[in-house]
Amino acid sequence: MKILLVGASGTLGGAVRTALAGRGHDMITVGRTGGDVVCDITDPEAVGRLYERVAGGSGLDAVVCAAGDAVFKPLGELTADDVAASFRGKALSQIELVRQGSRHLSPAGSFTLISGVLTQEPILAGAAASAANGAVEAFVRAAAIELPPQRINAVSPTVVTESLDAYGAFFPGMESVPLSRVANAYVRSVEGRQTGRIYEVA
Amino acid sequence: MKILLVGASGTLGGAVRTALAGRGHDMITVGRTGGDVVCDITDPEAVGRLYERVAGGSGLDAVVCAAGDAVFKPLGELTADDVAASFRGKALSQIELVRQGSRHLSPAGSFTLISGVLTQEPILAGAAASAANGAVEAFVRAAAIELPPQRINAVSPTVVTESLDAYGAFFPGMESVPLSRVANAYVRSVEGRQTGRIYEVA
Repeated sequence: MKILLVGASGTLGGAVRTALAGRGHDMITVGRTGGDVVCDITDPEAVGRLYERVAGGSGLDAVVCAAGDAVFKPLGELTADDVAASFRGKALSQIELVRQGSRHLSPAGSFTLISGVLTQEPILAGAAASAANGAVEAFVRAAAIELPPQRINAVSPTVVTESLDAYGAFFPGMESVPLSRVANAYVRSVEGRQTGRIYEVA
Repeated sequence: MKILLVGASGTLGGAVRTALAGRGHDMITVGRTGGDVVCDITDPEAVGRLYERVAGGSGLDAVVCAAGDAVFKPLGELTADDVAASFRGKALSQIELVRQGSRHLSPAGSFTLISGVLTQEPILAGAAASAANGAVEAFVRAAAIELPPQRINAVSPTVVTESLDAYGAFFPGMESVPLSRVANAYVRSVEGRQTGRIYEVA
């Protein structure tokens, strides 16, 4: 398959790239500052240019996103701009990949978005991220009834073991998962036939 | 209790007002065009002015929201602006009521927000609304671990019987609920002691 991978340069994106490339897929990598194509997916016009550039000819078989930014601050310190930025950085951006991407994706193609454990299991300072994740997951369920034959799923990981040094303090007592398990959920979404699923990796 | 009711002029808001006033609470009604105070809650500065105006002195015991606008269009017709407007109209607006309202609310006070069945049960043309609802529900769960002793819940109704003439066609085969049951969930949130709950009325 010809797969567009957004967020390829991140910790998760790198693992997803390795997993999918290892299964013989052709990967087109997208990053905010590097990759085959540079694109800031929080800008709808940039998303349009991205698809025009990469989807010509035979089109895409899958769009896979491992990119999402949210603001982590205690609720009492969050600003209105922080909340809006979190929606733009993780929810609106991914919804835009689907909204504009559907016409560039093959009929049997799929979208795989990223949410996270905070949808269901909140942590201190994570309210904006929780809200953005909740938006992504509900959107996936809803888009899944309008996109067929195209499919859409989300991968919802808890904190990954490889990131415990950086983020472990935010997840006291919560078990981590290895990146390889999260990447495997992307493989399941891309190569399987389910749609509207939230693949929780916890 | 002294209760701020946002969206008091709507079908749902009217029922919530009747139910809470009938239980002896003092209601301050807020609407975009009418009520005790006029406020467009999609404007963070207007929300600030709202609280400055109504919360002086003894403060508020509950903030209750029955207002939320989302755009209903098939996924293929939704624009980026439609998606952003749906987040502003139902998610960012309600998050702003909480974000700014916490310091005006009494320690034992509560917030009650509105989401809806589309978080879990999508309908055609409802993807933007689903996303906004999902954001509200995940935010409620997250805020509930940072607000104590203040509380926060959401009421998540399916289509209400009194609105079937207007909206029934969007909900084929889905059972409706009478407004009185939805209003009762608001009473439960305000007078009960639970927090972080999504009260589904379906």
